[in-house]
Amino acid sequence: MPREKTALKAIAAALDAETRVHDDHHVSLRLWLRLLSCTNQIESRVRQSLLSSFDTTLPRFDLMAQLERAPQGLKMSELSQRMMVTGGNVTGITDGLEKEGLVVREVDSADRRVNRVRLTAEGERQFRRMAAEHERWVVDLFGAFSPRQKKQLMDLLGELKEHLQ
Amino acid sequence: MPREKTALKAIAAALDAETRVHDDHHVSLRLWLRLLSCTNQIESRVRQSLLSSFDTTLPRFDLMAQLERAPQGLKMSELSQRMMVTGGNVTGITDGLEKEGLVVREVDSADRRVNRVRLTAEGERQFRRMAAEHERWVVDLFGAFSPRQKKQLMDLLGELKEHLQ
Repeated sequence: MPREKTALKAIAAALDAETRVHDDHHVSLRLWLRLLSCTNQIESRVRQSLLSSFDTTLPRFDLMAQLERAPQGLKMSELSQRMMVTGGNVTGITDGLEKEGLVVREVDSADRRVNRVRLTAEGERQFRRMAAEHERWVVDLFGAFSPRQKKQLMDLLGELKEHLQ
Repeated sequence: MPREKTALKAIAAALDAETRVHDDHHVSLRLWLRLLSCTNQIESRVRQSLLSSFDTTLPRFDLMAQLERAPQGLKMSELSQRMMVTGGNVTGITDGLEKEGLVVREVDSADRRVNRVRLTAEGERQFRRMAAEHERWVVDLFGAFSPRQKKQLMDLLGELKEHLQ
């Protein structure tokens, strides 16, 4: 009898452990879907706002944001790597912005076979105006959080990012 | 002198308040960029794994996942709405999966002008095999977190999601 009890306990413990593992698997999957869904919703709101307020697209905004952080300009390959959103062809977007006088392509001074893209003064002016609005939208979208919660989320995502690298 | 002090204090307080506001704006923006970057990294890892392990794409996997949750099938419009990832044309993906015998298009019994798509038995079998692997990848990707941290992140994202709706 005590042996049976031990055996039963062992089976129960094994089942419990398996349930815990499965629960944990399930939690990770739900976590991923929730992360993806939140990101998608915010991205879609930002896309809508850029369209209605500035008649522009998120990939255009993203491309200008990357250039704004690189005053010496970026090679096309660097630009492609740094883009944070999908849905745009980098060459096509650059062509469009160049036609509007917002970016210029220049020959690299160190390697004349390479083109660099940078914002024009007008591009910088336009980007800053959009960026200020964009910041306001993002503050609103995260309006549910207290400063403490924002810090918590930053820290958790920071750990996740580190683990992913 | 005390009046000056009060004035100075008021100015300092006003400046502090402004700094706090700007800091908070900055935090929200950084939070959004970190959220986007984590999502992009996980998505890109999952895309790579699906390609190397099953020679398939994330939009294909996503489409099958949506059908798996709807045993009675989905209209094309419903399918498009439910997709969680970009980068695929729903009609094109459905055509491909139909050719391989993994999904079928059927006339809706209630409205004969409407087509519904559903997984075949073979589609279901293939999806389950991929889903089990996919779950393992996701568990690894979130491997940095303790159960407590997973719960924290779930709760924070839950609040964010509710605020966005």
